[in-house]
Amino acid sequence: MALQSCINYLLTVAQHQVFQAFSAGLEPFNITPGQYGVLGCLWERGSCTPKEIAQILQLENSTVSGVLDRMQKRGLIDRVVDPNDRRSVRVVPTEEGLALKDGVLKVIDQLNAEILGRFSAEQRAVLLDCLRQVGRVDHAGD
Amino acid sequence: MALQSCINYLLTVAQHQVFQAFSAGLEPFNITPGQYGVLGCLWERGSCTPKEIAQILQLENSTVSGVLDRMQKRGLIDRVVDPNDRRSVRVVPTEEGLALKDGVLKVIDQLNAEILGRFSAEQRAVLLDCLRQVGRVDHAGD
Repeated sequence: MALQSCINYLLTVAQHQVFQAFSAGLEPFNITPGQYGVLGCLWERGSCTPKEIAQILQLENSTVSGVLDRMQKRGLIDRVVDPNDRRSVRVVPTEEGLALKDGVLKVIDQLNAEILGRFSAEQRAVLLDCLRQVGRVDHAGD
Repeated sequence: MALQSCINYLLTVAQHQVFQAFSAGLEPFNITPGQYGVLGCLWERGSCTPKEIAQILQLENSTVSGVLDRMQKRGLIDRVVDPNDRRSVRVVPTEEGLALKDGVLKVIDQLNAEILGRFSAEQRAVLLDCLRQVGRVDHAGD
């Protein structure tokens, strides 16, 4: 099999291109694609445990912890004690984290449209569905 | 747009799953998916400049340099002076690097078959073609 047909190679280079486009698009908001991932979880759910964020983003708990540290320092999120379980920490967006939502989601929509716009609706559906299956994404969130 | 429909999120989690499967599959050969990428270039072309490898794998030159250092230490590649341009370095596989080819490619074929086996031939064709376009992969190598 040629390298150019290997699924690991193709996913890696496609992810690299898209990650760069997202990094550039999110730069005016001073957030990274990973930080958008965290905010996306919080905007959809209101609040999350760090473990839930790690599961959704498929990151190590220690990686999430570092991302959350930077976001807290930057004033985008807070860590609060869960009122229903005082041994547990929940992550919530600050007002600044909430204020970014409309602007960031508009750019995210534009980036998705630019990257996927070259494909037919059918191709897009196959691509996204295959990626969800390969990435073991829980589809219930849609 | 929900996070679960965002192309950056879906590519990142799919790449993560596939990278882990490839890492485990290549472990018996004591090579990483990135090192397989380098060997794949060399097996196909015989030799490459470090810059060519960086272009094919879409990595920074400095990243490739580090990967090559580790592979040279491990006895998989050598850096030689280009006989046609004595200012230029070419990367070549050692005998050990060449000896891995059949075994590694068999595992790569199996991993691709496992990951893509759940999809129809048509879905696979759409997926790989979309990833090539998004990843700006030069198709001439096929």
